[in-house]
Amino acid sequence: MKIIVDAMGGDHAPEAPVKAAVKAADELGVEIILVGKTDDVEKELSQYSYNKDRISIVHADEVITNHEEPAKAVRSKKNASVVVAANMLKNNEGDAMLSMGNTGALLASGLLIVGRIKGVMRPALATLLPSAKGPKMLIDAGANTNCKPENLVQFAIMGSIYMKNVLSIENPTVGLMSNGEEEGKGDELTKATYPFLKSAPVNFIGNIEGRDVMEGNADVITCDGFVGNVILKTVEGMGHVVSDKVKGIFTKGFLTKLGALFVMKGLNEFREAMDYREYGGAPLLGTKKPVIKGHGSSDAKAVFSAIRQAKKFVETNMINEIENNINVMEEKVND
Amino acid sequence: MKIIVDAMGGDHAPEAPVKAAVKAADELGVEIILVGKTDDVEKELSQYSYNKDRISIVHADEVITNHEEPAKAVRSKKNASVVVAANMLKNNEGDAMLSMGNTGALLASGLLIVGRIKGVMRPALATLLPSAKGPKMLIDAGANTNCKPENLVQFAIMGSIYMKNVLSIENPTVGLMSNGEEEGKGDELTKATYPFLKSAPVNFIGNIEGRDVMEGNADVITCDGFVGNVILKTVEGMGHVVSDKVKGIFTKGFLTKLGALFVMKGLNEFREAMDYREYGGAPLLGTKKPVIKGHGSSDAKAVFSAIRQAKKFVETNMINEIENNINVMEEKVND
Repeated sequence: MKIIVDAMGGDHAPEAPVKAAVKAADELGVEIILVGKTDDVEKELSQYSYNKDRISIVHADEVITNHEEPAKAVRSKKNASVVVAANMLKNNEGDAMLSMGNTGALLASGLLIVGRIKGVMRPALATLLPSAKGPKMLIDAGANTNCKPENLVQFAIMGSIYMKNVLSIENPTVGLMSNGEEEGKGDELTKATYPFLKSAPVNFIGNIEGRDVMEGNADVITCDGFVGNVILKTVEGMGHVVSDKVKGIFTKGFLTKLGALFVMKGLNEFREAMDYREYGGAPLLGTKKPVIKGHGSSDAKAVFSAIRQAKKFVETNMINEIENNINVMEEKVND
Repeated sequence: MKIIVDAMGGDHAPEAPVKAAVKAADELGVEIILVGKTDDVEKELSQYSYNKDRISIVHADEVITNHEEPAKAVRSKKNASVVVAANMLKNNEGDAMLSMGNTGALLASGLLIVGRIKGVMRPALATLLPSAKGPKMLIDAGANTNCKPENLVQFAIMGSIYMKNVLSIENPTVGLMSNGEEEGKGDELTKATYPFLKSAPVNFIGNIEGRDVMEGNADVITCDGFVGNVILKTVEGMGHVVSDKVKGIFTKGFLTKLGALFVMKGLNEFREAMDYREYGGAPLLGTKKPVIKGHGSSDAKAVFSAIRQAKKFVETNMINEIENNINVMEEKVND
């Protein structure tokens, strides 16, 4: 199996992707193709002893920054690492791709180059969020705004298939993010989506609210990408603020540092459970081949998790399963 | 000054509203009119020695539950405590009203009975959220779904006036909740709202993202009520989960309890800063007279804060200021 890794994207590129590639080639038995500036990648690689049969470099010397309009940049910068990677994936030179770079550019590459699964109207970014009951999926976490009911139903179907295959959750529950639990609550979009979800091939449990996200009351949360992005970033921001404050309290003086010592183990376990780096990246669901977005701030540990996740994605038959279920749904809607 | 308090609404009614009324009459120099079942309220009141000139009871024996359709219930249950309170406010028998009961019923009472300020298209629920930089306003936090750009602009204007008058923040900053910071980012609603906000009489700082909520990067966050409700409940839910987990860690064994002792003071200060009960209730901004929604789980301390807030609301000239600024804006839009 060959995983294509964008070696230039993210806050810690190329160090983190290269370090993770070495570890993955060693421990996961996969081949890694690092796409990026050959000199930079080789320089990083030279620090490690690694299996040369399992790591290769493909040159790409452009980078798409966060300030460019993604679709335009993807069309014009043919030699950007993410574009080269997507073209390789499309041409079956690899089995999955991973990038920690510009989210918009990766989404555009997935949509425009890798292409959609037949029947999928809009691929969606699916993020795993920590919760009191383990990792839960938020889909769409930001790829699509101004969604239609059919989009939210497809997100629910694709998210359920992912949770079953990659997280081994049997019959994952699906909640529709709304502003109240009752069926009548919601905005125009969610009210129109509710009846479709009832007849969709998913384990729909009705509307859920913001408080259900961290409580983990649905395995898959389906929502418009605008709302999903706001939720994701609100949770991230709150995590930072709370952990900064708690750190400040513990390091105030001698006694507080002593106190911290006694609760360190528990706090570390908690932090680990809440650590996005354990969960790998966010898959873009609905493309013909697996495309995974790693967090921009990913360190080598996070990139490694994302590679492991890409491997699991490829090993399952998920893409076919998505195509079959999406089409079942299309027939129902058209009945 | 007379504050009308719905004595029957909320999880701790009538105990919490009655206890808070006694304290407020004593310490804030205001008159309190408790609206609810006379027998129940009198029984609660009999436990306290209180200033009988400052507390009176108005009988209302119906209650609107969370399962009723709010507007319908407000129209049909003429003797519900929230409806009686709103009618008293409308008829100038009090200066402000406060309820911890059904949010929808309070919003409907505000809209249908108290009425809108001239020029205000939709009153909005304005919640104060804790942040790393003190309390910030989220408006609309759930009163309106499917908003138009003009609504979001009015929310920003009203929120700014409130933050200036009640929280003494000079020239409060306004952020437009979106899924990216750049001007071009957003859904149809926020993209259309952006240019209007630029020319509105507010200190507009551009788009903000979910992470800015807890970091406190805008004094006023304007958004559709669906999005605001999701943010509010996500933050609340995360607060519960994190504090439960931390409590669990500290109470695990002898050493962890000892450790907790050393950091207790700091943790309590932090908890207090994050405690919604300190902030009072959520004002419904845009009605002709002050209407305040207290949290359903409010204890006496929270109800007291909300009464203090109602007093401050009345003392300012905010309603006039809102009317003047909304109309200035109307002229601009119509230019």
